[in-house]
Amino acid sequence: MTPTSTPSGLSGQRFHVTYRVTGDAARCRAKADDICLEQTIELARDQAPPGALGEAIIGHIESFAMIAVDAARVVVSYPVEAADDLTQLLNVVFGNISMKPGIRVEAVALPPSYQARFHGPRFGIAGWRDLLGVPVRPLLCTALKPMGADAKELARRAHEFAVGGIDLIKDDHGLTNQSMAQYRERVLLCIEAVRAGNKASGHHAMYLPNVTARPTEALERAHFAKKHGAGGLLFAPGLAGFGTLEDLAGPAGPGLPIMVHPAFLGSHSESPDHGVAHAVTYGLLPRLAGGDATIYPNWGGRFSFSQEQCMAIATTAREPNGGLQPIFPTPGGGVALDRLPALKQVYGDDVIYLIGGSLYGRGPDLADNARHFRKLVE
Amino acid sequence: MTPTSTPSGLSGQRFHVTYRVTGDAARCRAKADDICLEQTIELARDQAPPGALGEAIIGHIESFAMIAVDAARVVVSYPVEAADDLTQLLNVVFGNISMKPGIRVEAVALPPSYQARFHGPRFGIAGWRDLLGVPVRPLLCTALKPMGADAKELARRAHEFAVGGIDLIKDDHGLTNQSMAQYRERVLLCIEAVRAGNKASGHHAMYLPNVTARPTEALERAHFAKKHGAGGLLFAPGLAGFGTLEDLAGPAGPGLPIMVHPAFLGSHSESPDHGVAHAVTYGLLPRLAGGDATIYPNWGGRFSFSQEQCMAIATTAREPNGGLQPIFPTPGGGVALDRLPALKQVYGDDVIYLIGGSLYGRGPDLADNARHFRKLVE
Repeated sequence: MTPTSTPSGLSGQRFHVTYRVTGDAARCRAKADDICLEQTIELARDQAPPGALGEAIIGHIESFAMIAVDAARVVVSYPVEAADDLTQLLNVVFGNISMKPGIRVEAVALPPSYQARFHGPRFGIAGWRDLLGVPVRPLLCTALKPMGADAKELARRAHEFAVGGIDLIKDDHGLTNQSMAQYRERVLLCIEAVRAGNKASGHHAMYLPNVTARPTEALERAHFAKKHGAGGLLFAPGLAGFGTLEDLAGPAGPGLPIMVHPAFLGSHSESPDHGVAHAVTYGLLPRLAGGDATIYPNWGGRFSFSQEQCMAIATTAREPNGGLQPIFPTPGGGVALDRLPALKQVYGDDVIYLIGGSLYGRGPDLADNARHFRKLVE
Repeated sequence: MTPTSTPSGLSGQRFHVTYRVTGDAARCRAKADDICLEQTIELARDQAPPGALGEAIIGHIESFAMIAVDAARVVVSYPVEAADDLTQLLNVVFGNISMKPGIRVEAVALPPSYQARFHGPRFGIAGWRDLLGVPVRPLLCTALKPMGADAKELARRAHEFAVGGIDLIKDDHGLTNQSMAQYRERVLLCIEAVRAGNKASGHHAMYLPNVTARPTEALERAHFAKKHGAGGLLFAPGLAGFGTLEDLAGPAGPGLPIMVHPAFLGSHSESPDHGVAHAVTYGLLPRLAGGDATIYPNWGGRFSFSQEQCMAIATTAREPNGGLQPIFPTPGGGVALDRLPALKQVYGDDVIYLIGGSLYGRGPDLADNARHFRKLVE
């Protein structure tokens, strides 16, 4: 049994962060020592709280290994009490040291009992499948575009996609509350259009409006969407905060499944020597904060993520992890329809394929394009 | 006069983003073209809305110049209607392209009439000076530390700092609602301690609790702080969102001045070839979102920002910019007391000096250390 407290007054439970740091051996060691202080007491070691508490509150170097002449892998542990919520977990993991060169967060491992304090996904893969009545196959998703089209034209497109059998019809993340297609009008028209399309086709498509905005506005839009019959939400935490995602997924939110969009998160993952690994940025954090699906740009599209990085995201989204429900990896960002058969071999069934441009580009009959997409997946 | 609408139905007003892109000339040109589509319609050019609207909604390359054999500077303009709020401004400026290599946002220029839609600072330099009754000199700030100390010990320190004449006594950004010093108890004790310190010294120190958390919690903590007499707030938008900062500074918030902390923002600024320039990340965005002071790690401390980067932040915080009030640059991050005379030559009077470790490290009498700090500044 875990003791409930130690001489420090803390539980003794610690979470572990794997960092990759750059520099020669002496520099790497100095960086590791610095991380332990910078991320906790932010003072010199001799100004820590006295005794066992001071010992416990500071980061501990659990392992240190040079993995190249100019790089080390360091595992640092922190007491779970240092990070009482997800926002503060981000801070302890990488807050101040995000402004120091050559430090990359490779992995974050949380003890299961500590993890229970995070809300996590309300629906996850199983819950979302229940809502849709689709127990096994990959789900189909597309985006309503382009910015500039009016609400009627976007709703017309939503109707076609529903008729053709797309499961999840989401706003493009660039559709917010612009004058060209204001949020409330767009949402009402698209909900109605998808309902009519479902009636015609016998499918159960869901419409997911984009609620990315400052929190008071995001919550209001989310409740409006729920009230009028939207099936889920789209939200970009890089733009509007992982904490806002927590609120949307938690008691303050409307109780709808949430698809997470990666906009503005790229700064964290782009540099190999700095930032936060793809699996953490696009896999672990969306899942901890309450997303039910996580979009990322698949390899071979118009972005630069590698197959290895994408598979690490998918693994982190789906692997057993304490009490957190698995969530859907949602590769997008320029996936061409003709790549789907090959991708199915890699991703299996628990995946959402987000196809945008390739679906629009196939020809003017969007319902027919959607049928083709569906045939490729089934 | 500006026409109120054009053949596209838009106002014709555009905002301008300066990007630095890397690659040979052909690659740089291709990146510039890609940015114009990726950040707006997210489709091929031939699938834009028809006619003048399509022409207008897409980004326009306003200028393009190779600035090295492997880098170009590109100015792209977007219609102001593309970005109806600050969250969406972040998205249009750098949302999806944050996930593409070798693109850095160097500057963002907004037409004044468009800028009026952003809340901006409620107090700014002049408003905060009024609250403190300090019309000209630099302001003194320190942080209550360390994580792990209990609320009584933190309040004791706050008292000493108030006695010694520190103007702004803020929580360390790592103090949240941990069991060691829970938010409500800490805030009540620190407010009382600063009040007592002021009474003893005749100064007017303010206590600024850290309200960085998910938005529902941040707003609740902010209102609690106001109700019980805190003078201002500390908030880290990198951890909890620029939109949450807008809500704290706007009608949903308690009407207190806000000091912005840079934790977790470093991923944006760290790479010279990617991300968002220091002046935008730590200067423009905090100011647009409603911060009244912006903390950043000064050069020569324990972080890696250069003098040029720090001065660009200070300029962006203070320069005339439409209707936005100027805000305090707040250099910190390991500024040693003995550097203050030299820094005063560079920063002038409209600055907040955040001194933490060096103030604690000078000796055990914190009030005396604070008096020394004050003498150096006056």
